[in-house]
Amino acid sequence: MSRFVQPHIQAMQGYIPGEQPRGVGFIKLNTNENPFPPSPRVFEALTASIGDRLRLYPDPVATEFRKTAAALHGVEPDMILAGNGSDDLLTIITRAFVGPGDRAAFASPSYLLYSTLVSLQNGRTAVVPYGPGWSLDAGSFLGQGFKLAFLANPDSPSGTVQPRAWIAELAGRLDCPLVVDEAYADFADPDGHAIPLIADHPNVIVTRSFSKGYSLAGLRLGYAIARTEVVAELMKIKDSYNCDALSQAAGIAALRDQEHLAQNRARILATRRRLTDALRGMGYTVDESAANFVWATGGRPARETFTWLKERLVLVRLMSYPGFPEGLRITVGTDHEIDRLLELLREIP
Amino acid sequence: MSRFVQPHIQAMQGYIPGEQPRGVGFIKLNTNENPFPPSPRVFEALTASIGDRLRLYPDPVATEFRKTAAALHGVEPDMILAGNGSDDLLTIITRAFVGPGDRAAFASPSYLLYSTLVSLQNGRTAVVPYGPGWSLDAGSFLGQGFKLAFLANPDSPSGTVQPRAWIAELAGRLDCPLVVDEAYADFADPDGHAIPLIADHPNVIVTRSFSKGYSLAGLRLGYAIARTEVVAELMKIKDSYNCDALSQAAGIAALRDQEHLAQNRARILATRRRLTDALRGMGYTVDESAANFVWATGGRPARETFTWLKERLVLVRLMSYPGFPEGLRITVGTDHEIDRLLELLREIP
Repeated sequence: MSRFVQPHIQAMQGYIPGEQPRGVGFIKLNTNENPFPPSPRVFEALTASIGDRLRLYPDPVATEFRKTAAALHGVEPDMILAGNGSDDLLTIITRAFVGPGDRAAFASPSYLLYSTLVSLQNGRTAVVPYGPGWSLDAGSFLGQGFKLAFLANPDSPSGTVQPRAWIAELAGRLDCPLVVDEAYADFADPDGHAIPLIADHPNVIVTRSFSKGYSLAGLRLGYAIARTEVVAELMKIKDSYNCDALSQAAGIAALRDQEHLAQNRARILATRRRLTDALRGMGYTVDESAANFVWATGGRPARETFTWLKERLVLVRLMSYPGFPEGLRITVGTDHEIDRLLELLREIP
Repeated sequence: MSRFVQPHIQAMQGYIPGEQPRGVGFIKLNTNENPFPPSPRVFEALTASIGDRLRLYPDPVATEFRKTAAALHGVEPDMILAGNGSDDLLTIITRAFVGPGDRAAFASPSYLLYSTLVSLQNGRTAVVPYGPGWSLDAGSFLGQGFKLAFLANPDSPSGTVQPRAWIAELAGRLDCPLVVDEAYADFADPDGHAIPLIADHPNVIVTRSFSKGYSLAGLRLGYAIARTEVVAELMKIKDSYNCDALSQAAGIAALRDQEHLAQNRARILATRRRLTDALRGMGYTVDESAANFVWATGGRPARETFTWLKERLVLVRLMSYPGFPEGLRITVGTDHEIDRLLELLREIP
C-alpha cells in the first residue's frame, strides 16, 4: 500500500529515532537536555491543571500563553505562535513557504531536520557550508531564488553564534523569510538574540523552545515570533488544537519564572566553561560554545572515544558531516556528570 | 511579508477558532466534549509523570502506548501510530498521499478539516454528497483518480454510520487509501468498527481519538491503525517527538480502564436516547445517532433557536451545509444539562 504514498516521500529514508536509553543508569549527554529540573512553579501549574477540565478542548490559540511570551519579549501577542515543540513550528513554517521544486537554504553542519522538512515538501535543499572559525558567507544565501532560509543560532553541533549585525545584514539582503532557530538562545548572550531584528526586518521569524533552557523536553512546547501578518498565515496551517492544556499552563508558569531560568543558566555556563577548558587541556579542539553543549574534535579518534564512553554508561553524540572532522557533541550535564565524563576520558588507554 | 507564502495558502481563509467561552457559566453542548471526567487512573498516571523526568525527551515512537493500543485491538504494535490528537494523524496522512493538483474525496456534510488539509497540500477536493437517509453511493468515490478518501464513521453532524459491509465494499473497489475517521466510534456499535477490515483491505487506515470517549480533549492524543508498511511511511512525516510524555502516560492509563469508558458510554447512550425522543416529540427531525451528539433539523428555525439558547447560556452548534437544511448539532451532555436544554426549548415563545 506504500505505493500510494507520494513518490518523493517513498524515496525518503525511514524515520530513525534518536538514542533514548532508559532505566539502565546511563549518563545522558547526547541530546542536549537540561540536567536540572523545571521550575517548581511548572509543577504547581501542571498539578493544578490535572482535573475534570481536561475533558474540554484547550484554547486553540493559546491566548494566555501568547500574552505571557509577548510581555517577556516586548512584542504584541499576535506576533506569537505557540507550537507543539519548535519542530511543529519549523514544520508549519516550511509548509507555508516551500512548495514542490522550491529551494530552501541552510548552513551545514546544522540541525538535520531542516533538510527533512524541505524534502517532505518535495523542495530542494541548498547547503551553505560553514567556513573556517564557523563563519558563514552571507553571499552564499543570495541570488539563488531561495524561498526560505534557516539559521540555527547558536548552531549545533558547533555551539557557535553569528553576530546579530551579521544576521541583520543577511535578512536585509535576502528576498525570502529567514528563520532564526533560537532553540539554544537561552544559553547565549542576550545581546545576540534576533527578536529585536523583526522590527526592521519583516522577513525574520524567530523560533524558541522550552526543551533546553526551561527543562521541558518531555512536554513539547515552543513558539515562533514574527510579524503579525506572518503569524496570521502560519495560523492557517497549524492543527486547530496543536498545544494541549497542560503544556500551555506549564509554558506560562515557566516563562514567569525567569529567576529559575537564570539560576540554571548560570550553573550550566559555569560547567560549560570548566568542560571546555578541561577538554582543551586534553588536546581536543573545542570552540567557545554559546549553547548547552560543546563540540569536541581532534584529540583521540571520536568514534573510539564514543564507544569507550558508552560501554561505561556515558552517552555522548558522535556526529559526522561531509567535509568536517568527525566529532563528539557533549551536552553540559551536572558537575557530577561532567566529572565522570572527564574521569573516563583521562582513563582511555 | 505574506507575499512569500505559497499562493494557494495565501488564498485560503484565515483560521477561525471554534467558540470556546470560558468561565461564564455556559452549558457547552457545542463541541462534542464528554460531559464526564476521564478515568481516575488517568489522573494517577499524570500525577506520577509530573517530575524531573519532564526535562527528558519523550519516547519518540510511543512504544508502550503502541503496545497497549495494539493489545486492545488485537493488532501488532507497529500497526499503531500515535498522534498529537487525531487531527495530527489526519494531517500526516494527507501529506503522505495528496500532492499538488491531486484529488481527494470526502462525504458532505462531514468534518470540515478534510477540505482544509487537502487545500493546504494544494490538492483538489471532491465532495460526495449524502443521499436520503444519510446514505452514500460507493460509486461516487470511484473512477475519478482520487488519491485519498475520507469517511468519518460515525459522521458529523448526522451522527449516522455506514455499515461495515459497505465500507468493506468501498475499500475493495477504491484504488487509493481510505481513511475511516472513528473519532466517535466509542459511542457506536462495535460491530461496525472498521479495524477488522484492515486484514483484508490494506488500503484502510482507521483513526481514533481520546477527545470524545476518553474525555481527554484537553490533552491532544489520538492514534491511527494501518498496515505496518503504511505506518512506516507515515512515521517519516510525523514530527520526531509529536506526543509528549504526559499524553503518552495518560493514553496508556485510559486504554487500560475500559470499564470507565463503558460506564461513561452507557450513561451517554441513555441520555442520547432520551434527548432524541424528546426532540422528536417537539417536532424536530432527529436521525438515530451513533455518536455523542444528535443532529436536529426541522421544528423551529435553527438560527433563532441557537440564539435563544445562547442568550440563556446553553451553547449548541448551528451548522449550515449547501443543499441541506440548517440544523443544530447538540452534544449529549449530562442529564442535568440536557434537562435544562429541553426546558428552554419548551419555553421558546
